[in-house]
Amino acid sequence: MSSLRVVVAPDSFKGSLSAAEVASCIADGVHAARPEAVVTCLPMADGGEGTLDALLAAWGVTAHTVDTVDAIGRPRRARWATSPDGRTGVVELAEASGLPHVSDAPPQPLHASTRGTGEVARTVLDAGVEEVLVCLGGSASTDGGAGILTGLGARLLDDDGTEVPDGGEGLAWVDRLDLDGLHPRARQVRWRLAVDVTNPLVGEHGAAHVFGHQKGASDGDAAYLDDALGRWADLLERETGVPTRDLPGAGAAGGVPAALVAVLGAETEEGAQLVAEAVGLPEALADAGLVFTGEGSFDSQSVRGKVADGIARLAAASPAKPPVVVLAGQVLLPAPLAWEAGITAAFSIAPGPVELDDLLHRTPARLTDLAAQVTNLVV
Amino acid sequence: MSSLRVVVAPDSFKGSLSAAEVASCIADGVHAARPEAVVTCLPMADGGEGTLDALLAAWGVTAHTVDTVDAIGRPRRARWATSPDGRTGVVELAEASGLPHVSDAPPQPLHASTRGTGEVARTVLDAGVEEVLVCLGGSASTDGGAGILTGLGARLLDDDGTEVPDGGEGLAWVDRLDLDGLHPRARQVRWRLAVDVTNPLVGEHGAAHVFGHQKGASDGDAAYLDDALGRWADLLERETGVPTRDLPGAGAAGGVPAALVAVLGAETEEGAQLVAEAVGLPEALADAGLVFTGEGSFDSQSVRGKVADGIARLAAASPAKPPVVVLAGQVLLPAPLAWEAGITAAFSIAPGPVELDDLLHRTPARLTDLAAQVTNLVV
Repeated sequence: MSSLRVVVAPDSFKGSLSAAEVASCIADGVHAARPEAVVTCLPMADGGEGTLDALLAAWGVTAHTVDTVDAIGRPRRARWATSPDGRTGVVELAEASGLPHVSDAPPQPLHASTRGTGEVARTVLDAGVEEVLVCLGGSASTDGGAGILTGLGARLLDDDGTEVPDGGEGLAWVDRLDLDGLHPRARQVRWRLAVDVTNPLVGEHGAAHVFGHQKGASDGDAAYLDDALGRWADLLERETGVPTRDLPGAGAAGGVPAALVAVLGAETEEGAQLVAEAVGLPEALADAGLVFTGEGSFDSQSVRGKVADGIARLAAASPAKPPVVVLAGQVLLPAPLAWEAGITAAFSIAPGPVELDDLLHRTPARLTDLAAQVTNLVV
Repeated sequence: MSSLRVVVAPDSFKGSLSAAEVASCIADGVHAARPEAVVTCLPMADGGEGTLDALLAAWGVTAHTVDTVDAIGRPRRARWATSPDGRTGVVELAEASGLPHVSDAPPQPLHASTRGTGEVARTVLDAGVEEVLVCLGGSASTDGGAGILTGLGARLLDDDGTEVPDGGEGLAWVDRLDLDGLHPRARQVRWRLAVDVTNPLVGEHGAAHVFGHQKGASDGDAAYLDDALGRWADLLERETGVPTRDLPGAGAAGGVPAALVAVLGAETEEGAQLVAEAVGLPEALADAGLVFTGEGSFDSQSVRGKVADGIARLAAASPAKPPVVVLAGQVLLPAPLAWEAGITAAFSIAPGPVELDDLLHRTPARLTDLAAQVTNLVV
């Protein structure tokens, strides 16, 4: 190997810098220490919001857009992407059905829907892709993915044969699925769901009880939605034979995996790992001498399915087995626990006693300096 | 080389941990990462206060004590040391003549004296050493080292042949030196003065103007003392032929080097480097794979004659050329400036946004964790 190869694959620093900005700062530091180093920047995401941006940056492509509706039915333009080879399409649920887009309106926890995301997915299928990555997270709805099915052309009928309304409320009345109008390619492509939680569909750890409140659900709403999701899972199992009540991660994004796993044969995957593979991290790691990742807070959550965890596992599985260094706004995980997770070392960008606001302001410069220090030390 | 050898040679974290405590915390971290590592702890000092403790720890010896006087003539017991081979004696000026010991009395900037330190030195000479290390810094007096000479048996006479009183005030009247009573070994041994400043004896950057105020001198006192030190340097040069007015570092400890260089042939040395050599750092570095140092604040001063600087230069000169890593309460020096000074990398113990009090409280645990992270990364 003639020159040092460094992979820079951070998550975003939430509320401060995008993953691409973090990567750029770190790359500057690597070059300050080793001007001859070959640096590969692969901004990462954990499958939730920001994932589409990470894939666009890694693939060097620009986003497509499509006019659809937001979680409460208002017009909204959403972005989506295809991989350079055209085989993979990417749908980020938060683009159409995200909570931030409806924060200006009264919460509609019982009626918010993922229908807009289904319409985006229909456009993606029209583009002829072979697989669809659906990035979950940041949803405004608790509809068990029913909206995505209807957006793709399915009909949810009550016992009178009437379509039930969008949203979680209607799930309780669904008597049967009419899939005649489903997009013809919907059951031909591979669906991969990037999930960053392991919550089940229903129960005290389920979608309604854990995530419903942040979407505006009262305790009563949450109890109603939990019951409705349970009935929805029963209906799906009756229609498809696929149980989803106890599927780990089925509680993501208001229960979206339930419908997509049962009806479309989707697979849930750990988001960070899926993104890492999609952006080509395994290939980049093959001859890397050093890997940087990073995130705002490196804590016990970081090594459970987040970006740092995904990268550590891929690095350990790579032929070069490069050291993995985390640069973070704060480091809360003790060294031995980081090591267990395959992280070689983790450092905070804090230069000493400092207030949060001051540190946020200095994050770019501190990232560069810290990356320089580490690079100079390692190689 | 069968196992990793790590040298841990920090300064103290002022106001928080002694150098030995810092070293112990770092060693714990090294062992957490590499239980098989051979760690050599050499607590360091820069030649000022704390140097005696560092040497005692490094040599594994206990201090001797002697009854003497403090800077204003009150009884005081002072510690001193000899190296394990008995050839080197150590006198820390602050032990007898330090400012903290007289903080309970009104300041006597014109009369405070280093006589007590001279008496300690007499005891050290009686012990038969071949060289005397005098650790300067922390002095309460501005007497140009006259007190050390009188403590060793010299007499400072005015033009009537009467002894002048102790302190800087009397320096202006000294007409000649009577060295008949000087300790017989005083001019046979090698005197090495550990100095951590480069200030000259007199002038605007001299001992009186720069350091006089912290010893209680008014502007008028400082001007008087500056003039007295100048006359003292003239007298010393007339008697010995040795000029000291412009000697770098002669302004240390109220001008102590002036008398010792002129009369005793002492050499001034950079304190950190002298201590490093005295504790055996060069030998320890010879086969080291990694060196840790540290201090409360790593800043532009750190690479100018302080501990980190001395260690970096010795590491660069060693056969193994091990990386030198600074662990500090705060890191203010940008990486490229640290590299110029031979520091491989510098990291703050701050785990994120944190207040000073909280960080002080967590310093031991943070030092251990940070040392563990770095060790795991390097080897």
